[in-house]
Amino acid sequence: MKASVAIQVLPHVDTDEEVIRIVDEVIDYIKSTGLNYFVGPCETSIEGEYEELMDIVKNCQYIAVKAGAPKVSAYVKISFSPDGGVLTIDKKVTKHHK
Amino acid sequence: MKASVAIQVLPHVDTDEEVIRIVDEVIDYIKSTGLNYFVGPCETSIEGEYEELMDIVKNCQYIAVKAGAPKVSAYVKISFSPDGGVLTIDKKVTKHHK
Amino acid sequence: MKASVAIQVLPHVDTDEEVIRIVDEVIDYIKSTGLNYFVGPCETSIEGEYEELMDIVKNCQYIAVKAGAPKVSAYVKISFSPDGGVLTIDKKVTKHHK
Amino acid sequence: MKASVAIQVLPHVDTDEEVIRIVDEVIDYIKSTGLNYFVGPCETSIEGEYEELMDIVKNCQYIAVKAGAPKVSAYVKISFSPDGGVLTIDKKVTKHHK
Repeated sequence: MKASVAIQVLPHVDTDEEVIRIVDEVIDYIKSTGLNYFVGPCETSIEGEYEELMDIVKNCQYIAVKAGAPKVSAYVKISFSPDGGVLTIDKKVTKHHK
Repeated sequence: MKASVAIQVLPHVDTDEEVIRIVDEVIDYIKSTGLNYFVGPCETSIEGEYEELMDIVKNCQYIAVKAGAPKVSAYVKISFSPDGGVLTIDKKVTKHHK
Repeated sequence: MKASVAIQVLPHVDTDEEVIRIVDEVIDYIKSTGLNYFVGPCETSIEGEYEELMDIVKNCQYIAVKAGAPKVSAYVKISFSPDGGVLTIDKKVTKHHK
Repeated sequence: MKASVAIQVLPHVDTDEEVIRIVDEVIDYIKSTGLNYFVGPCETSIEGEYEELMDIVKNCQYIAVKAGAPKVSAYVKISFSPDGGVLTIDKKVTKHHK
């Protein structure tokens, strides 16, 4: 695989319920991209082509704003290897979730 | 819940196989603590008491060094709320893994 | 201000000298954008328009690859507030560097 | 050098003024340790012995709570190399701040 990202989106809103509602909209957006993803407690990992992933990372904050957050913070981990060799989500977590 | 952490440990070694072997030792250590945890592709989340979690975060790097890494980097997210109110792993991910 | 990012680029190369050489090329690129920036030990902060910043974040990894890194990791913090209100670099650090 | 950390402390409070006031108390605490440090826009880097640094990382959240934050998040980067070889703050930033 050539690239993967892991993103945590933090909408600046008043209640935990609002945080969860907005983050769920962001996760729904990630699901809608059709890429392989994995939702963890503090970030969602996605794997695919670098350009597409960076577009998705950018869009996540727009989704959060549209969903009602006046301000958004995000923490992103990026792995990029143009000739392949990025470890897959499957290789990293499957054995730990049996 | 009063505290949670998410940690990514990156041993500086030559091959992906070595990275995986050492990270698996760190994850085995986290499992051995008996705390509630969740392994994701780029970090492992753990919930519990703040002092205990910070000890575990510190020990993860010792485990990686003992397993053979001459140098270790780690990325840690910490949530701490002495009067409770930190969202649980269960509340954040269970609905997304059905 | 509407947006800021902080980025740490980690080229996967063999020596510290190579890491420094490649990271310096990334920092030179950031300087060349003309935006306001601040170089810290583990990340460089940049402030500007959200779309432009996200382009720069994407390009940093291309710069590192072009400079010789077969694989790159990056850690990015994003703050985005479409109606303004993101704290400026100046407001956050100037008083601490006198 | 054997270890360095970079920490961003985010108190969950209502206003930017409160965030700044509390973060400044955390930075004052870091200064009071006598270790070499560097304040950036989104994190403060500190270098020293691993055990001492991990104690400081832990204490930063206590300082933020004592200063009035009911809840605190923190993002921490750790570099640890028992036999030395962690790049110094000076080596990484001095040339960029002339």
